[in-house]
Amino acid sequence: MKSMDASQIKQENQQYVLHSWSKQKNVNPKTISKAEGVFFWDETDNKYIDMCSQLVYLNVGHQHPKLLEEFKHIGEIPLAAPGFATASKAALARKIVKAAPSNMAKVFFTSGGAESNDHAIKMARMVTGRYKIFSRYRSYHGATFGAGNLTGESRRFEVEPGIPGFIKFDTPYLYREVVDFPSEEEATQFYLARLKNQLLYEGPQSIAAIFIEPIPGSNGVLIPPKGYLEGVRALCDEFGILMICDEVMTGFGRTGKMFAVDHFNFEPDMITFAKGVTSGYAPLGGVIVNDKVANYFDDHVLMTGLTYSGHTVCTQIGCTTLDIYQEENLIEHAAKVGEQLAKRLEQLLSFNSVGDVRYIGLFAAVELVKDKTTKQPIIEYGTDYGKDKVGLMSKFISLLSENGFYTYSHESSVIIAPPLVITEQQLNEAMDLFEKTLIQFEQQYLFTDQTLLTK
Amino acid sequence: MKSMDASQIKQENQQYVLHSWSKQKNVNPKTISKAEGVFFWDETDNKYIDMCSQLVYLNVGHQHPKLLEEFKHIGEIPLAAPGFATASKAALARKIVKAAPSNMAKVFFTSGGAESNDHAIKMARMVTGRYKIFSRYRSYHGATFGAGNLTGESRRFEVEPGIPGFIKFDTPYLYREVVDFPSEEEATQFYLARLKNQLLYEGPQSIAAIFIEPIPGSNGVLIPPKGYLEGVRALCDEFGILMICDEVMTGFGRTGKMFAVDHFNFEPDMITFAKGVTSGYAPLGGVIVNDKVANYFDDHVLMTGLTYSGHTVCTQIGCTTLDIYQEENLIEHAAKVGEQLAKRLEQLLSFNSVGDVRYIGLFAAVELVKDKTTKQPIIEYGTDYGKDKVGLMSKFISLLSENGFYTYSHESSVIIAPPLVITEQQLNEAMDLFEKTLIQFEQQYLFTDQTLLTK
Ligand SMILES: Cc1ncc(COP(=O)(O)O)c(C=O)c1O
Ligand SMILES: Cc1ncc(COP(=O)(O)O)c(C=O)c1O
Repeated sequence: MKSMDASQIKQENQQYVLHSWSKQKNVNPKTISKAEGVFFWDETDNKYIDMCSQLVYLNVGHQHPKLLEEFKHIGEIPLAAPGFATASKAALARKIVKAAPSNMAKVFFTSGGAESNDHAIKMARMVTGRYKIFSRYRSYHGATFGAGNLTGESRRFEVEPGIPGFIKFDTPYLYREVVDFPSEEEATQFYLARLKNQLLYEGPQSIAAIFIEPIPGSNGVLIPPKGYLEGVRALCDEFGILMICDEVMTGFGRTGKMFAVDHFNFEPDMITFAKGVTSGYAPLGGVIVNDKVANYFDDHVLMTGLTYSGHTVCTQIGCTTLDIYQEENLIEHAAKVGEQLAKRLEQLLSFNSVGDVRYIGLFAAVELVKDKTTKQPIIEYGTDYGKDKVGLMSKFISLLSENGFYTYSHESSVIIAPPLVITEQQLNEAMDLFEKTLIQFEQQYLFTDQTLLTK
Repeated sequence: MKSMDASQIKQENQQYVLHSWSKQKNVNPKTISKAEGVFFWDETDNKYIDMCSQLVYLNVGHQHPKLLEEFKHIGEIPLAAPGFATASKAALARKIVKAAPSNMAKVFFTSGGAESNDHAIKMARMVTGRYKIFSRYRSYHGATFGAGNLTGESRRFEVEPGIPGFIKFDTPYLYREVVDFPSEEEATQFYLARLKNQLLYEGPQSIAAIFIEPIPGSNGVLIPPKGYLEGVRALCDEFGILMICDEVMTGFGRTGKMFAVDHFNFEPDMITFAKGVTSGYAPLGGVIVNDKVANYFDDHVLMTGLTYSGHTVCTQIGCTTLDIYQEENLIEHAAKVGEQLAKRLEQLLSFNSVGDVRYIGLFAAVELVKDKTTKQPIIEYGTDYGKDKVGLMSKFISLLSENGFYTYSHESSVIIAPPLVITEQQLNEAMDLFEKTLIQFEQQYLFTDQTLLTK
């Protein structure tokens, strides 16, 4: 690559590249001039701690030397189309199956999260012979038409009119539920009873699968109440429905375990994954299927495919990424540093602008409110796309960034999901920046009534 | 990567990997032990000439030294999420826009062909505010739900029940048309009149886009009759419909010009691409949009996105690939060697089993028949997926492979699309193998009536 200076890079990005989820005239992208571990520097040498791992994928951190070294060995395994057997594809599929819940048997590879969900839908329909697909409000599954139809928020609207048979049900979201539950267990009963009714109303004999982010990510790290996921599994078993967990964001250590489902007592029929499998160093995703699904395709044609299914380079990078998780004990490390993150988040609840904090491992959200007693959200539902970014939440995210804390938000929740390599000290420093920003934010934008300011 | 021997590679591929478009118990993949330029060698050291560029993507050939070298420089540009500006993304978008028809303005990046088509559909709906999407029978656009619904052959069935508003019309396929046309011009008039009627019956005010592979690839390299594509463009203009050309297979030199549309006198509103942009060395695709579409998104939110849109590594590999096309004059070279391919293909028409040959640049199909006068196809329509591969066509493809000529087929057509680096001598040697195989095939499988044998 011929080198370009930052101003040319920016100018040509604006001139030639279409940017996601934006009005192009509002796009004013930063560049990254240097990066290492949890840090990156922009073109004017401002330093940031990357508290969202870019888009929650850079689990091993920026510029990991072992991965950069692995790129030097690309070429030792010749490129091959999906019909060939390759060492990297075999080794990665084996590693993934061994890392996944014990019932998992085989992997179908794709190049990203959305493609993985599209393929899981197709497989579920083939295996069951049924066509209806359940998924949840407050979920994000990707931007292709299958994944988009699964999605339970405003980013679905552009793929409507929708595919026949895609049905939505509610994600437990206890902080904002219209019912106030005396216990988690009662919440679980409520949601499961409602889901069971809806399955019956829709006709279980036509329902192929239930898609669930075990812990919805973009929509605010919504931890399920005790027993909920196990209860969904039981309903699936009762009606012969496949349970498919979207672990695109949660997979590969994010939550302090290899997969989010490992925190619970059930096994899904399929797991979709992407992001963490390569830490984003190469585009790769896929669907892990259990023995039942795998066996079905022994004798039935798997009627789907992608030019880059099991891409030689990407699966090679995936192998190295999984080795790094193991060699550096990153998943145990994430669990441990996650405990410190939990402490720091609980302390945030003393702020008048912090309504709720939710966390598991290094995967967390801070939900901001205008008023703690009424729980009035910082921005109204459904207004963070499609408008010029001038709302209060953008102000908060900009302030964070000015203070060197890089992350993004969705609705009223700020995502906190640093690279798993973050040290406890780095995390504490970052959370100090977060607290400092909250104070500035309350003072500058939030509480004209000064008595409401925290402290 | 720890090295694995071929038998372990095969065994673990069968044990752990789900393979596209197949019954898994029938999968018996080869491995590639070595590869260079147009050749590769399998685990038992059999040598093959790769006459389909893997899946029509390896335009620069196997193990191109400049690309393998470029992988060593991965890491010089830090990874960045789509919201950032990067040098490789800017440079590649600029190169693509400059290489594309003059009205093209910006690029949205994806990781493959299917994703590109899904995004083009979404953009077309956003820009026009209309929801109906026209595409053609005998087309393949990919396996995600949007691309799958565009697809006009049996590989669509697994994404049904379909998305409302996806309408199909006919691809001109003169060899098997029910009408016999006195001239190409009259064929064009026929197809355009039918299309215009269908647009009117469907209500042009609700039609967002017409998707076309300018030269359908998988479905048998169907060259459009003179004036046809220009006529479709005129209909699009008449009704305010966007014309979107899927150049996933034809783009980046395959046809002897940069894009297939460069052979004709019209400009589409969008071009979708993948494969050739990186020669498959990294998963990358995208949508090129004209100034009209680009301008729309200045003031309207582009409501779609992908984690790996403009992936740093993949766009870097794309830049190098485009440099290679230029430095090695590969596109002019493809046009020139294509003339020799044309000669060799025309000669095949003397075979009693060859019904039709179609070609442009290094993109060709040989359509086999059981009987030249009745045109009875080698296999019946719609039977090449979903059955065990025991038909006559699989026999032919196996014979080719035994003779060291590697390619694949769809319906009754054999695809010939070697890397653009192929020399005239290599091409002639490959076509000698093809002829030898045809003779064996006719003798062994086809003509029990010996008088029908060619020669
Ligand atoms: C849970 C989940 N599923 C799917 C996706 C889509 O992944 P991709 O952008 O790679 O298509 C995302 C992206 O953030 C995600 O968070
Ligand atoms: C014309 C065309 N469009 C789209 C696709 C789908 O591309 P991918 O397999 O990368 O999703 C293909 C694949 O062969 C193709 O030939």
